[in-house]
Amino acid sequence: MNDNFEYLFAPNSVAIIGASDNPNKIGGRPIHFLRKYGFRGDVYPVNPGRQMVQGYRAYSDILDVPSVPDSVVIAVGTDAVADQVERCAQMGVRAAVLMSSGFGELGEKGRARERRLVEIANASGMRLMGPNCQGTANFSNGTILNFSTMFTDVAAQDGPIGIVSQSGAASVMPFALLRQAGLGVRYVIATGNDADLGACAMAEAVARDEDIKLILVYLEQISEPHRLASAARIAKERGAYIVVLKSGGSTKGASAAASHTGAVVGNEAAIDAFLARSGIWRARDIQDFILAAPLYLSDRPVGAGRSVAMSHSGAVAVMTADLAEREGLELADLADETKTRLTAILPDFGTAHNPLDTTAAVLSDPTMFPRVLSAIGLDSQADTVMVSVPMAGPGYDLETFADAAAEFVRTQNKPMVLSAPQPNVRAVFSARDIPVYATEADAIRALQQYTKHQQLRAALRESRVIEPIMGLPRGLQDEHRSLSLISDHGVPVVENILCNSPDEAVTAFHELGNVPVVVKGCAASIPHKSEHDLVYLHIRSTDDARRAAESCFAALKDMGITKPQVLVAKMVKGEHEIALGATVDAKLGPLVMIADGGTLVELRKDAVTLLAPFTAKQAREALARLRIAPLFQGYRGKPPLDVQALAEAAVALGDFAAGSRESLISVDINPVMVMPSGEGVLAVDAVVELNQ
Amino acid sequence: MNDNFEYLFAPNSVAIIGASDNPNKIGGRPIHFLRKYGFRGDVYPVNPGRQMVQGYRAYSDILDVPSVPDSVVIAVGTDAVADQVERCAQMGVRAAVLMSSGFGELGEKGRARERRLVEIANASGMRLMGPNCQGTANFSNGTILNFSTMFTDVAAQDGPIGIVSQSGAASVMPFALLRQAGLGVRYVIATGNDADLGACAMAEAVARDEDIKLILVYLEQISEPHRLASAARIAKERGAYIVVLKSGGSTKGASAAASHTGAVVGNEAAIDAFLARSGIWRARDIQDFILAAPLYLSDRPVGAGRSVAMSHSGAVAVMTADLAEREGLELADLADETKTRLTAILPDFGTAHNPLDTTAAVLSDPTMFPRVLSAIGLDSQADTVMVSVPMAGPGYDLETFADAAAEFVRTQNKPMVLSAPQPNVRAVFSARDIPVYATEADAIRALQQYTKHQQLRAALRESRVIEPIMGLPRGLQDEHRSLSLISDHGVPVVENILCNSPDEAVTAFHELGNVPVVVKGCAASIPHKSEHDLVYLHIRSTDDARRAAESCFAALKDMGITKPQVLVAKMVKGEHEIALGATVDAKLGPLVMIADGGTLVELRKDAVTLLAPFTAKQAREALARLRIAPLFQGYRGKPPLDVQALAEAAVALGDFAAGSRESLISVDINPVMVMPSGEGVLAVDAVVELNQ
Repeated sequence: MNDNFEYLFAPNSVAIIGASDNPNKIGGRPIHFLRKYGFRGDVYPVNPGRQMVQGYRAYSDILDVPSVPDSVVIAVGTDAVADQVERCAQMGVRAAVLMSSGFGELGEKGRARERRLVEIANASGMRLMGPNCQGTANFSNGTILNFSTMFTDVAAQDGPIGIVSQSGAASVMPFALLRQAGLGVRYVIATGNDADLGACAMAEAVARDEDIKLILVYLEQISEPHRLASAARIAKERGAYIVVLKSGGSTKGASAAASHTGAVVGNEAAIDAFLARSGIWRARDIQDFILAAPLYLSDRPVGAGRSVAMSHSGAVAVMTADLAEREGLELADLADETKTRLTAILPDFGTAHNPLDTTAAVLSDPTMFPRVLSAIGLDSQADTVMVSVPMAGPGYDLETFADAAAEFVRTQNKPMVLSAPQPNVRAVFSARDIPVYATEADAIRALQQYTKHQQLRAALRESRVIEPIMGLPRGLQDEHRSLSLISDHGVPVVENILCNSPDEAVTAFHELGNVPVVVKGCAASIPHKSEHDLVYLHIRSTDDARRAAESCFAALKDMGITKPQVLVAKMVKGEHEIALGATVDAKLGPLVMIADGGTLVELRKDAVTLLAPFTAKQAREALARLRIAPLFQGYRGKPPLDVQALAEAAVALGDFAAGSRESLISVDINPVMVMPSGEGVLAVDAVVELNQ
Repeated sequence: MNDNFEYLFAPNSVAIIGASDNPNKIGGRPIHFLRKYGFRGDVYPVNPGRQMVQGYRAYSDILDVPSVPDSVVIAVGTDAVADQVERCAQMGVRAAVLMSSGFGELGEKGRARERRLVEIANASGMRLMGPNCQGTANFSNGTILNFSTMFTDVAAQDGPIGIVSQSGAASVMPFALLRQAGLGVRYVIATGNDADLGACAMAEAVARDEDIKLILVYLEQISEPHRLASAARIAKERGAYIVVLKSGGSTKGASAAASHTGAVVGNEAAIDAFLARSGIWRARDIQDFILAAPLYLSDRPVGAGRSVAMSHSGAVAVMTADLAEREGLELADLADETKTRLTAILPDFGTAHNPLDTTAAVLSDPTMFPRVLSAIGLDSQADTVMVSVPMAGPGYDLETFADAAAEFVRTQNKPMVLSAPQPNVRAVFSARDIPVYATEADAIRALQQYTKHQQLRAALRESRVIEPIMGLPRGLQDEHRSLSLISDHGVPVVENILCNSPDEAVTAFHELGNVPVVVKGCAASIPHKSEHDLVYLHIRSTDDARRAAESCFAALKDMGITKPQVLVAKMVKGEHEIALGATVDAKLGPLVMIADGGTLVELRKDAVTLLAPFTAKQAREALARLRIAPLFQGYRGKPPLDVQALAEAAVALGDFAAGSRESLISVDINPVMVMPSGEGVLAVDAVVELNQ
């Protein structure tokens, strides 16, 4: 079925059912806004009680409207909605904006009612926004099918930004802040209950608009991730960016998950992994949502992302270094030639290192600021520039500074931000299209976000296609089956032998070379073996092996296991214990978690999550973000670890999860023993659970 | 010697040496500002080339000035400064502001020059600000001995805030932002090189001003912590607050420290501990510095710090919950009666839980907003309130809302913040003295800071006095001596016996009850024993004890230890391994670190630092901030741990560090084995280092 977006965003005619002559009522505001913002098509108010509505001829019934309107706004009482949807469908309307509330937001009964609306509409090819939605606005052509009061208080202006939101408030809050920053916004779309056309679909539609460079999407649920991913692909193709603000993280939906992996990954890490994989930046609040907007709009290459900061204050230089470290913005190491050039320009007590402090000498010599910028421009390490003007006043030649800044950006084509607490200082730079911020913290946050987002998007690659794995077992697998399963799919596992009697355990001890072994009770129903005295470590003799096996068999029988078994495995001690896990998010897909291992994995929370499938390179990049990452390079006399083998094991697990995504619940491998570099990794314990 | 602050802040007469007729030169600006901001005393410009300066009679020499000025500004070339300081001292001037640069900021030579200035001045009881300082400003009486251009661009206004800064830029940046927020600022003091009167001393002086409610202090070094602590005591006594922005954290001065504890604690954690102990809030950037200012100024009791948030948007409610969790602001659990009351007020689809969503129904019923606030006011759980108005426009009765908010604050005397993206909305509430913010994130950050700061200050207690410990050994102590030393001072340690031969080791094994023991080589020069094969665990037999001891003796001899010894200790396995450490910061004093233990203590960085001495209650509060804290209450089938014994061990270590602060370098106890609740803790390895 066609999405019919063109009828919502650029209709030739619009009918408003429940039209009001009062421009401050819900049924009156769209009519008021259509006129105010210059909509050129036909407007048909529908109101049985009036001849005229806000100067337009009114109709008593939608069926009386002289031609079929391209789209319809429905702003009537809950009980009247279905009837109006039916009439619209009947007459061939292509799209309707259901502002009326009283549906899915009230619970299951309301959801059933709204499903019925969608059925009625879709049956004739009509698409719905809402219900319970604020509507859509396209300020390029005045199609404001939206009842927000914000467009009265804050004057709209067309521009290269689109806002798509499941919430009305969250659509107009960023709108207000962007307009205050002087930026134009084309689309303000609040989708409400998402019963038919949802926010992800709308984002896809907005991404297709060639003029849009930045799409801000507020979501409470990602109901159609494939459409959001598609929006990201379309945006990337055109050089546009998508930033998502996904709220609701504090509810910790997954905290009750049964597996360690589920508990650590949770819904939020899954969403992070999905968005990162799609090249979408995740904002953490409304401020993050809009902060980097001017950088997205000018869109200059960030290169390797190394920044040079300059100001005329030593304190600002120190604070900038602190903030850059805190926010993860890399400061460039200036080339020696640059330092030589800067030393020739700066006064004695200015220092030619990054962040640069020109000192108050910029006051007495107006050529200094431009010359410093020129020197920075000659340095290939300087990918981006941040200028702070912490104070100004008489004697500060701001026009010359700002001209030099604009000239730098024009000739170097590198991103620059300016920070100044004084609005009059910001205005001088802003007039030359330099993104401006009131504090260094905001400037650095914006530059860091833009840098990382551009790099994230540039690094996107098409995923490998993983074929479904056939013949998978069902249900919770015991340790032996779990190890075999992951081993079959490429995860190296410890040598282990399943035994049905103490005699077999002794034989296994010999088969494994009489080396120290571990003897463990093995039963799918008892995943937490050590809590039940079912683990015997450091077994070095035939007698000990027999005794341990006997204890396990006895304990398992006591616990009612009808066919008790023990596992005999080589004792393996790695340099470090990592936890590897996999889960499948119903909407987002297969996920792999890599974490600092052991029993405290949930408390230490030193974990990264990847959407599968992924490459070994991506796994290594993720591993580098762990707090314990310095361990991989060799730490405090310990050897470097086989991080490549660990990455490959994670890739194998990811491929397994992707191939088994239809039935996989979770894989917990804890620990994976990581050996010194070149000696590999070995999974020594695993639990795989699949659907029954 | 008297600090002579009164001569800097409220002089009856001021001379300016190096006075300029040009109000935009450094020597001209103070004269311009003295007139502009209404200074009522005498002004004596000193300039040998002019009869008049900016309308004041000028003198060719400071010695020609008709009466001894209370304070003097010196704004002459570097080389002329000493001579002018000498003349001022000679004539009996009490205080001088040295704006001239070219001193300590240039290195050791300059530091020597500025020390000489201080000697000259102090010899006659004259005190100095600077050199290389922007100067001081007191807007209550127009004493602006300050050359900042900011006071030209941004109009000053007296108010209950004082700013003290080692940097000129960092003094006027918060000034500009506070003025933009409509707040008055009395003091703007930039102390420069702090050669005589430094920023900490200035903070103490400002704290004595009864009208000042908030003191913002920007520091790059805390050169006089005792004066800052004294400022905090004076401020607390009067109900005023101090917020410190200490920059330079990214330089990681302590990263090369030899001990684990030194590496984990570093300079920043020491400063955090010192400021917390003094009841001072530490801001992380300029934004943090000023954000909570309106809350400090109205200063209402935060009680238990539980907040109720309300808005008319479900999305804002969700985002507020996310942000509160992120920022650590506790949301109140509403009482059942409150829920009942709210349910009676709110529409069907509004939900009576916190954060509250009144829905757009507040639009149609202007009494709803006041009624909801009244219901909140009746709930004793509601300590603070946060109101969001994400959008407004025609139909929103903002005046009624703001009146109700003001009435709530007046009658309940509880802190309230308002968040709204629209400036016109904020203005309505701001006019009624409600602190306003553009985003929920800022509002929550401000409320959280104010809440925690008030609670921090309220919880301050006088420290116990720890007497110096006499007869301490010197230098690096071997494990046996280290364990004995901390044991003597109250830290429980494992039972251990020092042995001079394998025979003695065997005897020790028997003395310890033939239980599993550990045999370790013991030499002060080899603190990292396990890297040298000097640790034998799980020794259960006489033969094994002898063999292990023999190996240790042989290895120690190979390593050139002349009098090798081994330590035999009981094997102890606790439920969890904690690292306890102590260091002494030269300026701030003795510090104790408590961390998730083991060899990865620096990587896992799950640590808290306390200034010693402290109480067991304070130690327990600090322990609760560790990521692994859930372990203490019993975790995943493990028993609750003896967190009280751990806290008491930390207190004992803190008392030891405080008593030995003159000679202690560091204590590393890693691990301390923590047993199940009631079974105590045991230090099983320790290294104590004292000065030679």
